[in-house]
Amino acid sequence: MAGVGQVDAKAVGGGDIQRLVDKAQVLVEALPYIRAFYGKTVVIKYGGHAMTNEDLKRAVATDIVLMRYVGMKPVLVHGGGPEISAMMKKVGKEAQFVDGLRVTDRETVEIAEMVLVGKINKAIVSLLNAHGGRAVGLSGKDGALIQTRKHLHRKNGSTTGELVDLGYVGDVEKIDPDIINAMVEAGYIPVVAPIGTDAGGVSYNINADYVAGELAAALRAHKLVLLTDVEGIFSSEAGRRHLISTLTAREAQGLIHAGEISGGMIPKVEACITALRGGVPRTHIIDGRIPHSLLLEVFTDCGVGTMVTNDEEE
Amino acid sequence: MAGVGQVDAKAVGGGDIQRLVDKAQVLVEALPYIRAFYGKTVVIKYGGHAMTNEDLKRAVATDIVLMRYVGMKPVLVHGGGPEISAMMKKVGKEAQFVDGLRVTDRETVEIAEMVLVGKINKAIVSLLNAHGGRAVGLSGKDGALIQTRKHLHRKNGSTTGELVDLGYVGDVEKIDPDIINAMVEAGYIPVVAPIGTDAGGVSYNINADYVAGELAAALRAHKLVLLTDVEGIFSSEAGRRHLISTLTAREAQGLIHAGEISGGMIPKVEACITALRGGVPRTHIIDGRIPHSLLLEVFTDCGVGTMVTNDEEE
Amino acid sequence: MAGVGQVDAKAVGGGDIQRLVDKAQVLVEALPYIRAFYGKTVVIKYGGHAMTNEDLKRAVATDIVLMRYVGMKPVLVHGGGPEISAMMKKVGKEAQFVDGLRVTDRETVEIAEMVLVGKINKAIVSLLNAHGGRAVGLSGKDGALIQTRKHLHRKNGSTTGELVDLGYVGDVEKIDPDIINAMVEAGYIPVVAPIGTDAGGVSYNINADYVAGELAAALRAHKLVLLTDVEGIFSSEAGRRHLISTLTAREAQGLIHAGEISGGMIPKVEACITALRGGVPRTHIIDGRIPHSLLLEVFTDCGVGTMVTNDEEE
Amino acid sequence: MAGVGQVDAKAVGGGDIQRLVDKAQVLVEALPYIRAFYGKTVVIKYGGHAMTNEDLKRAVATDIVLMRYVGMKPVLVHGGGPEISAMMKKVGKEAQFVDGLRVTDRETVEIAEMVLVGKINKAIVSLLNAHGGRAVGLSGKDGALIQTRKHLHRKNGSTTGELVDLGYVGDVEKIDPDIINAMVEAGYIPVVAPIGTDAGGVSYNINADYVAGELAAALRAHKLVLLTDVEGIFSSEAGRRHLISTLTAREAQGLIHAGEISGGMIPKVEACITALRGGVPRTHIIDGRIPHSLLLEVFTDCGVGTMVTNDEEE
Amino acid sequence: MAGVGQVDAKAVGGGDIQRLVDKAQVLVEALPYIRAFYGKTVVIKYGGHAMTNEDLKRAVATDIVLMRYVGMKPVLVHGGGPEISAMMKKVGKEAQFVDGLRVTDRETVEIAEMVLVGKINKAIVSLLNAHGGRAVGLSGKDGALIQTRKHLHRKNGSTTGELVDLGYVGDVEKIDPDIINAMVEAGYIPVVAPIGTDAGGVSYNINADYVAGELAAALRAHKLVLLTDVEGIFSSEAGRRHLISTLTAREAQGLIHAGEISGGMIPKVEACITALRGGVPRTHIIDGRIPHSLLLEVFTDCGVGTMVTNDEEE
Amino acid sequence: MAGVGQVDAKAVGGGDIQRLVDKAQVLVEALPYIRAFYGKTVVIKYGGHAMTNEDLKRAVATDIVLMRYVGMKPVLVHGGGPEISAMMKKVGKEAQFVDGLRVTDRETVEIAEMVLVGKINKAIVSLLNAHGGRAVGLSGKDGALIQTRKHLHRKNGSTTGELVDLGYVGDVEKIDPDIINAMVEAGYIPVVAPIGTDAGGVSYNINADYVAGELAAALRAHKLVLLTDVEGIFSSEAGRRHLISTLTAREAQGLIHAGEISGGMIPKVEACITALRGGVPRTHIIDGRIPHSLLLEVFTDCGVGTMVTNDEEE
Repeated sequence: MAGVGQVDAKAVGGGDIQRLVDKAQVLVEALPYIRAFYGKTVVIKYGGHAMTNEDLKRAVATDIVLMRYVGMKPVLVHGGGPEISAMMKKVGKEAQFVDGLRVTDRETVEIAEMVLVGKINKAIVSLLNAHGGRAVGLSGKDGALIQTRKHLHRKNGSTTGELVDLGYVGDVEKIDPDIINAMVEAGYIPVVAPIGTDAGGVSYNINADYVAGELAAALRAHKLVLLTDVEGIFSSEAGRRHLISTLTAREAQGLIHAGEISGGMIPKVEACITALRGGVPRTHIIDGRIPHSLLLEVFTDCGVGTMVTNDEEE
Repeated sequence: MAGVGQVDAKAVGGGDIQRLVDKAQVLVEALPYIRAFYGKTVVIKYGGHAMTNEDLKRAVATDIVLMRYVGMKPVLVHGGGPEISAMMKKVGKEAQFVDGLRVTDRETVEIAEMVLVGKINKAIVSLLNAHGGRAVGLSGKDGALIQTRKHLHRKNGSTTGELVDLGYVGDVEKIDPDIINAMVEAGYIPVVAPIGTDAGGVSYNINADYVAGELAAALRAHKLVLLTDVEGIFSSEAGRRHLISTLTAREAQGLIHAGEISGGMIPKVEACITALRGGVPRTHIIDGRIPHSLLLEVFTDCGVGTMVTNDEEE
Repeated sequence: MAGVGQVDAKAVGGGDIQRLVDKAQVLVEALPYIRAFYGKTVVIKYGGHAMTNEDLKRAVATDIVLMRYVGMKPVLVHGGGPEISAMMKKVGKEAQFVDGLRVTDRETVEIAEMVLVGKINKAIVSLLNAHGGRAVGLSGKDGALIQTRKHLHRKNGSTTGELVDLGYVGDVEKIDPDIINAMVEAGYIPVVAPIGTDAGGVSYNINADYVAGELAAALRAHKLVLLTDVEGIFSSEAGRRHLISTLTAREAQGLIHAGEISGGMIPKVEACITALRGGVPRTHIIDGRIPHSLLLEVFTDCGVGTMVTNDEEE
Repeated sequence: MAGVGQVDAKAVGGGDIQRLVDKAQVLVEALPYIRAFYGKTVVIKYGGHAMTNEDLKRAVATDIVLMRYVGMKPVLVHGGGPEISAMMKKVGKEAQFVDGLRVTDRETVEIAEMVLVGKINKAIVSLLNAHGGRAVGLSGKDGALIQTRKHLHRKNGSTTGELVDLGYVGDVEKIDPDIINAMVEAGYIPVVAPIGTDAGGVSYNINADYVAGELAAALRAHKLVLLTDVEGIFSSEAGRRHLISTLTAREAQGLIHAGEISGGMIPKVEACITALRGGVPRTHIIDGRIPHSLLLEVFTDCGVGTMVTNDEEE
Repeated sequence: MAGVGQVDAKAVGGGDIQRLVDKAQVLVEALPYIRAFYGKTVVIKYGGHAMTNEDLKRAVATDIVLMRYVGMKPVLVHGGGPEISAMMKKVGKEAQFVDGLRVTDRETVEIAEMVLVGKINKAIVSLLNAHGGRAVGLSGKDGALIQTRKHLHRKNGSTTGELVDLGYVGDVEKIDPDIINAMVEAGYIPVVAPIGTDAGGVSYNINADYVAGELAAALRAHKLVLLTDVEGIFSSEAGRRHLISTLTAREAQGLIHAGEISGGMIPKVEACITALRGGVPRTHIIDGRIPHSLLLEVFTDCGVGTMVTNDEEE
Repeated sequence: MAGVGQVDAKAVGGGDIQRLVDKAQVLVEALPYIRAFYGKTVVIKYGGHAMTNEDLKRAVATDIVLMRYVGMKPVLVHGGGPEISAMMKKVGKEAQFVDGLRVTDRETVEIAEMVLVGKINKAIVSLLNAHGGRAVGLSGKDGALIQTRKHLHRKNGSTTGELVDLGYVGDVEKIDPDIINAMVEAGYIPVVAPIGTDAGGVSYNINADYVAGELAAALRAHKLVLLTDVEGIFSSEAGRRHLISTLTAREAQGLIHAGEISGGMIPKVEACITALRGGVPRTHIIDGRIPHSLLLEVFTDCGVGTMVTNDEEE
């Protein structure tokens, strides 16, 4: 009976079949991880190259939307330092830093808020939506999510140094996770910009790593993952540097005191410690320059960075 | 038995009592309106003096929070033209307009989004929170709320004039009210900034009046209220101008064609017509310069502006 | 364009506007109280002039319906002594009292129940319905709300005096608040008549003040308010009488022992103490002769009577 | 091993066992009926001997509580004519009737309401509670259950006769079953007294049969059962009277016109017709003097009275 | 008016009425028991004659369906030893027993599972469905209901005897009642076959009495009832045997040690003890040869067997 | 700072990273399919090699559990012909077939039920549980899932041939999907054995393909997938056989009439047609011998067999 049905040109031959079966095998290997993370909240600090490189952006977006579809509850926190500096330049202001912290006058915090909330946050929301997610952007003001207080800074970050007024730089006082929970319950992926207000309604710019750590604790998240532009935390032994795959909160603090952890890695490690202290069982600092590093972290046993754990776990 | 209890210095005398009773009487007069609006959605276009004058801002915030507490479901849409122009000036760009519409290049729409979403929207959210509400700011990107298409403009707004490319000025293609409903259900007051994206993810600035009209229709709101800086719509008869208290959609269109309604009043009236066509029973253009004009509109019989109704109602 | 739209005769002029704005201001002043009482249960003992004077009746009804609409959960308890006596007279019985308590034989308790449940209760229900509420009348028999035991009375109310048999006068043994909760949950305002039965199904008349106090405790109400025909509780010092604005439960008991609180004020004060002991944070004895005194109590800071508080609060 | 365990004196011997097994058999025979009525609403008009004889009262109470426990939803309506007349006599008023209808002046309707709502209704509620039910008494005022209008009566019940003013005798205008549904949903057995108000709040006494018929229709009940003091409806043929087991609505109306159905049976039959027209599939007029006639009606195939059905069913 | 209505041939005469009223009386006597067991879970071990005699099977099915309709939550566990032996014979295997326990090789456990799950279980499900219930059959594998471990048996059941390998005979390690709860919640009567698997997926046959005891404990059942082919537990005193109506768990264990309870009664008594230790308040061993013994146990005060209670109850 | 943290031996080098990233890429490619099938029901006919080969069994189990975790609702139907024949042989019965249908006497249907329900079904349930699913086995008797009638067979399957009595071979009369829905809602994967009963409670063996088709229709499934031991449906043209990738229901019927589809493929194709007629949009006959063919069918665009669609789709 000729001419009945369609013979699909895409019909697969023997070699193709094997390739397909190999692919299926990869999906199947993900199953134990999917089961383990089902219904779990994962807070992700999104930043660095993963936020600027177009390929990496697409990879992160797909990873997060996939996490949501397989039953996880991802919550994003993002920063945006370079874009704030760029915008300041545009309006003729020069960015100033003390001990790596931006000196933030009234105009600067206003620019920071506009850039973080009005540009970066919404760009991430659009990116996730475009990849099939249902994202919603929030700042710390929405639903009074982040209650903030002025950050008191002493020179060199020491506890005895001279007080330096950094202006509208804030610390997290308290997180009210109601709006995050309402959004997650309704099926959305929340994306949080690190801007908050104090009781008097004054706006502050907050370090996004710290917001991520506090938010993970407040949500009793299952994991905190921070995307960075390095491979992880290193230790040096006999003149050689090794990537550390696992270390405890206490060890991490030791490395900070010893000066082995420094610069931008400090707030990341401190965010991990905050989350761990707040009941989050696992925290990870991973290399955001590797495509799909987020997925690899969640869906494989291979550590693609450094895991910081509670002290008793070692 | 001396010295027992406290004799309150604030204890009220006869005259005070009368003053208090008068106050109670005012509350009581609001009851029929509270009953009539219980559980009803009211979309409010917030703009003009009510958004810049500190006293008016406080008054509007209290009005909206009160509306929510007595069982109504207020949803805000705001604009922000003057602040966009100010920001453009800061970065050295000059605002250009064709037929009252802002010519919006890539950089301009980016500035518009930052100002609307990152500054004005969050300021309104903070203001409502400070008055006891639980507000959440949304742009048209959040939850893919506003699907947008490029606005095609012909010179002078005529239907036959030459096409003018205004750049990233958008029209509402479709509203997906899911995120608004989820937020209202969870107890929040949504505040919407008029920024949307098309299917390709391109951002557009949209006229806030039109967004309010479309949103009222999509939510099947009970009322659309637009705050303006005039007393309402006027008609002229025998050389005298009269404030019109009620007119139908068809009459309103007649006044536009006759040139009696012009300038910034046109999008407001068209927003009313869109809402009415979409099933919203009442629309109001009211004078935002009067303190608590919103409350007066809702809680009294005294029209404080112009009501536009469906044609069959007259 | 002549003849378009309607120029409302009611359109407001300048002076009117100010008057309206003043009204709105009053509504706005109520907002902090509305927020504070949102979702809270308030038990109200309704009686005295407020239950007989037509103007006061309307005022109380509006107050209660308004309380419900702004999110509070009012529950009423009412008495009805004078009407019981009147009905007794009609059927040729004379009311007899011992220490202010009605001697209640079989026929009397039957008349009391008919008057309280079949006349007064339903009149209040109708009154609230007519003002836009959804009220439901209950006696202590409905849903076995009030489990009662015979009241043992000793002469002069002393603890050692001779026992006097007052007949079918009851004490509250236990409140089962299920039916109240079901009705409140379904949106109704419960109105409770102070009639109950013992385990054997025998009916008793109970003092409405005591029922209100026990009910407030059983419902873990936020407030108990008793409407009376006096300004509040007075103390005398140096021969002068002062209205007490606040006193503690212990002080109140002292005043009873000292004889400064006497007569019909005793059960009211004891009801307050019962409620306070049962976890109700605030109790109020207010002047029901002032129109809207209920609203003033709830929506202003001005005490219109005496507040009885827990001992530790003073 | 002596002295272990208890040898129950009640332990059953052979003959006892058979008696017990016979009892179980009766329960088992009820199963098909229990299944058929599971979750169904049955409106019961309670009156006559079943409401005055102590044994019958207990039997009716157990029947109704049992119906509720096996998954049915019984709703009661009761009358109380004789007690109203007795109370009128007590206060020195004589009951007057026109065509079997009570002439009801202001004082009479007040007495009727007190007796029906404050005495009979609560006695039924207590009776049901005492038998393990959870009953709640309602009048037509509660939750605005019965909206009433003045009954216009023409002499002899004809349509052309002279109008006679019977005073506060009402007809059902509309039933709002919300409160019944809320109570049933919450597990209660509603007991309804036939008192209602018109839009102006005026109280009326309504014939309980009619209330039962209208309520059955409004609740879309599965059955309406009216307890009477006769065996059912009779027809006469060749000089002999026969109890009719089944007749249609049309036949019933024929019998009324022919004068074979007369007196107090008319409102009962008309209540059946109202219910049938309103969608109730089965209506029954049964002999309330037979103990447990209610249970027999529901749990056996043996008609214990007359069933009135829709015309198409015959 | 001749020929109207139907005169039912079944219409009941005087004698019939009395018989009907007697029947109703039986239903009414069940009410206190129906109330007491409303919403309660009852685990029933079904076996013996009641599972083979056709009349008894029908009686048990009606009893259980009736229990469900009057608000109880029956859960069945069944055995099936004789049918397993019959099937083994069919395939040419001889059943072997050690201390009353079946020696169970691989093939035997497979046959046991087929017979229990594929034949007996489904026959019971069909039987219940045919009597108007909604039954669902489950084995210990469904929803991982019964986690099992190999039973270690010592000769003569002593604690010191030689270990005998009985093959695939299992003990209950843990019950996961989720699937039972889901089924009961959805309105079904669960019927459980005593087959389970260990962590490695190996199947075991388990004594149904023990499964019933463990299941009753895991479900926090209100009652455990075991149907047997004897009148109950007997004690002998002065050479005479008495049926024991009540004994405590400790006394029961004493009787086992004393050898007065022996054979197939041991697992039944031990199942009672397991249930009692697990919080089940009442356990019963009843005579399944009496028709409707289940109903008699639940709906009368007459013990039709032996009740085993907690020690403190005696 | 030596000795701090752990340097993971599993830490990944450059080449490893690429391999991991490739794996992530595979997961990501599945996203569009996961989104498309979210919340959708897929009925799977499980049989053939995929049910006997250990590797294939594991692969199928993982595929199905994975489908459930990524939000799909898989429902399985299985057959088991070879095991029925084997068991028959064991008990000394020889399997007989007419036109490929098993002649099924009383003893045979009993064996079929034991094997299907008591052995194969539970083995599949255990397999799924062991791979992390929560499975529950059901036969057509559970919850009265499959109402069956005797299959009337005419010789050679023609419509005019002589009637042949095949005994207890059944057709699906009606599916009551309540129990499937309850189980899926509660998180379980239902596994259905093709045994049903008629109204009289007689058991029948039904072809599993037909059960799958009817079940897909009754559940309004999104897809029906039948696993077979061939590559799909073939057509022959000019002497060569081609695998057909897509054909319509009408074309499929044509091929049956033309004799190109024959033998065991006929019920599979007819099951597809039943499902399509019942509203299932897509049906697939796929090669169960390819590992993870189920996953490939769902998560790739590459047809691994033949899709049968509605006529209008071609």
